Amino acid sequence: MKTDTQDILSVIANNIRGLAIDAIDACNSGHPGLPLGCAEILSVLYGTFLIHNPADPNWANRDRFVLSAGHGSMGLYAALHLAGFDLTQTDIQNFRKLGSKTPGHPEVHETPGVETTTGPLGQGIATAVGMALSAKHIQARTQAPLDYQVVALVGDGCLMEGVSAEAASFAGHLKLDNLIVIYDSNDICLDGPTTECFTENVEARFVSYGWHTQIIDGHDLNAIDQALRAARANTSGPTLIICKTTIGFGSPTYAGTSEAHGKPFGPVESANTKMALGIPTSPLFYVSESVQLFFKNRLLLQQSQQSEWELSFKNWTADFPENAAIWKALSNRYPSETVLNHIRNLEIKANIATRASSQAVIQAIHSEYANLIGGSADLSCSDSTFIKAGGIVSRDHYGAQNIKYGVREFAMGAIASGLALSGHLKPFCGTFLTFSDYMKNAVRLAALMNLPVVYQFTHDSILLGEDGPTHQPIEQLASLRSIPNLTVIRPADATEIKAAWIYALQSQGPVALILSRQGIKDGLPTDIHRLQHGGYIISETTSGSVDYTLIATGSELALAVDTASALHNLGKSTRVVSMPSFELFNQQPVDYKARILGNTGQRISIEAQSSFGWHQYIGIDGIAISVDTFGLSGSATDLAAHFGFTVPAILNRLGLHP
Amino acid sequence: MKTDTQDILSVIANNIRGLAIDAIDACNSGHPGLPLGCAEILSVLYGTFLIHNPADPNWANRDRFVLSAGHGSMGLYAALHLAGFDLTQTDIQNFRKLGSKTPGHPEVHETPGVETTTGPLGQGIATAVGMALSAKHIQARTQAPLDYQVVALVGDGCLMEGVSAEAASFAGHLKLDNLIVIYDSNDICLDGPTTECFTENVEARFVSYGWHTQIIDGHDLNAIDQALRAARANTSGPTLIICKTTIGFGSPTYAGTSEAHGKPFGPVESANTKMALGIPTSPLFYVSESVQLFFKNRLLLQQSQQSEWELSFKNWTADFPENAAIWKALSNRYPSETVLNHIRNLEIKANIATRASSQAVIQAIHSEYANLIGGSADLSCSDSTFIKAGGIVSRDHYGAQNIKYGVREFAMGAIASGLALSGHLKPFCGTFLTFSDYMKNAVRLAALMNLPVVYQFTHDSILLGEDGPTHQPIEQLASLRSIPNLTVIRPADATEIKAAWIYALQSQGPVALILSRQGIKDGLPTDIHRLQHGGYIISETTSGSVDYTLIATGSELALAVDTASALHNLGKSTRVVSMPSFELFNQQPVDYKARILGNTGQRISIEAQSSFGWHQYIGIDGIAISVDTFGLSGSATDLAAHFGFTVPAILNRLGLHP
Repeated sequence: MKTDTQDILSVIANNIRGLAIDAIDACNSGHPGLPLGCAEILSVLYGTFLIHNPADPNWANRDRFVLSAGHGSMGLYAALHLAGFDLTQTDIQNFRKLGSKTPGHPEVHETPGVETTTGPLGQGIATAVGMALSAKHIQARTQAPLDYQVVALVGDGCLMEGVSAEAASFAGHLKLDNLIVIYDSNDICLDGPTTECFTENVEARFVSYGWHTQIIDGHDLNAIDQALRAARANTSGPTLIICKTTIGFGSPTYAGTSEAHGKPFGPVESANTKMALGIPTSPLFYVSESVQLFFKNRLLLQQSQQSEWELSFKNWTADFPENAAIWKALSNRYPSETVLNHIRNLEIKANIATRASSQAVIQAIHSEYANLIGGSADLSCSDSTFIKAGGIVSRDHYGAQNIKYGVREFAMGAIASGLALSGHLKPFCGTFLTFSDYMKNAVRLAALMNLPVVYQFTHDSILLGEDGPTHQPIEQLASLRSIPNLTVIRPADATEIKAAWIYALQSQGPVALILSRQGIKDGLPTDIHRLQHGGYIISETTSGSVDYTLIATGSELALAVDTASALHNLGKSTRVVSMPSFELFNQQPVDYKARILGNTGQRISIEAQSSFGWHQYIGIDGIAISVDTFGLSGSATDLAAHFGFTVPAILNRLGLHP
Repeated sequence: MKTDTQDILSVIANNIRGLAIDAIDACNSGHPGLPLGCAEILSVLYGTFLIHNPADPNWANRDRFVLSAGHGSMGLYAALHLAGFDLTQTDIQNFRKLGSKTPGHPEVHETPGVETTTGPLGQGIATAVGMALSAKHIQARTQAPLDYQVVALVGDGCLMEGVSAEAASFAGHLKLDNLIVIYDSNDICLDGPTTECFTENVEARFVSYGWHTQIIDGHDLNAIDQALRAARANTSGPTLIICKTTIGFGSPTYAGTSEAHGKPFGPVESANTKMALGIPTSPLFYVSESVQLFFKNRLLLQQSQQSEWELSFKNWTADFPENAAIWKALSNRYPSETVLNHIRNLEIKANIATRASSQAVIQAIHSEYANLIGGSADLSCSDSTFIKAGGIVSRDHYGAQNIKYGVREFAMGAIASGLALSGHLKPFCGTFLTFSDYMKNAVRLAALMNLPVVYQFTHDSILLGEDGPTHQPIEQLASLRSIPNLTVIRPADATEIKAAWIYALQSQGPVALILSRQGIKDGLPTDIHRLQHGGYIISETTSGSVDYTLIATGSELALAVDTASALHNLGKSTRVVSMPSFELFNQQPVDYKARILGNTGQRISIEAQSSFGWHQYIGIDGIAISVDTFGLSGSATDLAAHFGFTVPAILNRLGLHP
């Protein structure tokens, strides 16, 4: 690297440090350790390495940067501000203030240049794996001139988390050579030195996954530059660059200690740090003129780089119209009317499990809906996510439509988010509903980011039978329904399955489909057009006030219908409500909700899971036919009887004896 | 190994195979792949290696065996049955039937010889790490003659899961040389060959963690025997024995394919398998007489081994009365009245965060309550779990009281369960409430096993402030409250903290304490004796029917009191209910609940989390002062105003304008 480049990168690094400690002091909250320790890394990334255009943060072929160690947000914001992204000095000064573009941890869609939401450790690197895979997949499908790199910066915390281990093993398996992970190795975690908890050989571990590795001095600009260039040039798999750094670099009091991690320095230590580093102590939020000029010039280069790529892309679309057509199809993530009609008109076998009906839908549309990419955590033959003619994604066949994630639910969730962040793909992924627990926080992050991922969670109640309580979900529906921004749908039959997929494919945010292992009873008067209301009446024996209102979901809707019939025989009037989605129902107008849940007489919910959350519909005096203990190992029939999921048992609960 | 030993072990292996396929056929459900593939491993373990006594499965110094790949349960049950545990042939024939001692996956407390509940992959090995650590810890504390081994059998699925990576790294860090992991490496997972998803170098990975490794033929009895003996002799850290096996070994049709994993063979293939292996095809559930005789003789040896150990233990108690006293103290997991009184009489500073009050309790009792062992996922200085004079558990100091788990929440949960399974220890562990998501299924398994673990989940609402939505829990309380058998307590102040710890220390099952980051307002009329009822009235302005009933938890109780006061000024009568624990409240008699929630007028819940689950108390027409979207980054004050957690905002919601 030329001396003058090195000089300006060095100034950039210190500008990042100064901005970070000032912003953190200003709001009296934040994490100075990483911005100071990784300032040289950020300087090289934003000063020379990353190929992107701050004036157009959505350029398709931009390199993506993911700050997996999201608590170092102020380092990222400082770099984005200097590099010319739409992030002003005022934004920096408003760090962590309500309504600012600079929240406590980086949030995609809130800040230009932030590619994914990070903070929950380990998930940034896993999402980066998904982003890298999406590039490989789209490139393989289209042969488009896509060659961007995904660069993630991780700390010790990220690498201790199991989700990063899952994702790194998977990235090595797929030889994702467009993935570069920079490891901020400072031997310090929040709670003290890593010698107290984390003494594995990280380099050897990543070699065991099939990664290329390097170890460098993370404060040596030349070494960082060379390592990154080598990583970009490497085509044998993903690269880990282990950067030995000093946390809180420059702070006379806190550098190299866990004290630097997450507390503001305060004015005295900040001034001392600036003096030690040769940063002017005033004004606060100082940015050197040379840095401003450097990035102004760099922006011109970046804009010309993008223009050049746009031209080559245009030429490519002209030269390869068929491929360009695939690109165009991928560019619209919403399904065509043809796809939706295909679903509407699909004939599905009667009485099969809802997981099987769901697979029939996937199977029907996968070839005409290019955006669809599926996958499973080693259960595709059981959670019914497998696309039969879709091939299996591998290092030799990135363009396939089935991803075999292995038994790695958490990474699967984060990787699916990375796929969705491409803007092109509509990922779905599956596992047993109970094991949604393993990926809970990835589903949550997808909901926070409002990403259009579809989760296919099957084996949705005790009625899965013999596998017993470890595999029988009880509280998982409550757990998922309580996540903001996630739409949970538990369809009752093939009709509702079709409606659920129609909704899910058009959804801008994440959707969880909850599906049965066991066959269901078909022939219910369900309605493909009314599922979108979340809850609707499927039968009613009087237009006035009814004696009993039965509200059920999924495989229990048939039981509700049978119970209503038995009640009718006893001279009671009934209403049966199918309630496949709490979230969709709760979004309906007040009068719609009143029509469904008004004049209901005794309200009874029937769902073979926890009653937790149901009282919003059945009220304090409602009767919940539910499972509020753990399940048991046994046949579905024995379990239904044991847990009271039979017509006689329900009548008994109502004090009625036929 | 002598030839005759080898011969009988070979017969045992085939007896295990025969029993497994017959039991799986009989209930038409189960997983033959592992029992057939690991029959030699199980044969050596139960035939020669494990030092235990089937007649006394609770012997303190017994070797522990954990079938981490829990779906192979029939292999374990067959071995236990042959070895003389209290598991009859009828029990085997009732495999997976409702009420049997042989549920679908192994469940501790249900089947003699089953040490922990497994099935959710990866957690068995993590729990085994906790069991191994508990042995080291108790041995270090007492110097008792404890030298048992913990042996876990894992499959590919277990090793793909991130939780096993976290646990294995941690076990290597602590050099747990009493831990042996046998890896059933058959190159097949449920969904197909591992070449499709799992191609890392597992041996190199474990070496990177500091493990001793061996690779052997998993069907070679001699090799298994030697490898296990070498592992027991090894004192340089944990051992991984990679056993190359054939899944479904012996099955002419399914051996070596994923078809063998999880489906019954049916009578034809089972008969063909038996013929191929030289097992009599009739009767079903065949056990050879030589095997019966072998284990009958072995039982005599085992009983004498236990007697010998009991004698040496008795001598030790006589020789080292002080150490024996520690052992005795550890043997009673319930706290003494002295400890409980100490908590009751503790003076705690006013207006501090509930996490800080909780730490004050821990700090006060740790030296007199020997069973207590704490730990945190790299947040002990923030989640306030650190015991100041407790030392840090390390390879040189297993007897310390603080475990630094690193940023490994999921493994922490499973390891804490392993510590609790010792029967001696009362583990508690901490992280931020949002990150309880990462360990959700470990908490669930602890609840299923009814283990007395205490979780200290802090930073319990949006009011943690600037860290923003990734760190702000919204739905985590709903998620935890919906887990059966888990008691969740969100105390409002120091008084309720004391009561919560008194409850938690006496609890036989798991308890989650939900604690604030921010300081709370003290001086509320809370009651140390009434928290155990889950909910109780702390103020009431009329003995008749009230206008407004405010039900709140944790840091929002003070807001409820302030709101009640404002309502009083407006001439309204009020009742304020502190509801620290839904679970404890729901266990109260009907008339108690009616006293608290009857004649309530308008019911209002106040809790800075999701309203999901609250309508069981406030009813359909209740008003939930809650957070049903994701949080935001900002100061606690700004967030309280934004989300309506102020007296004026609540009055406004009630349509009242002061």
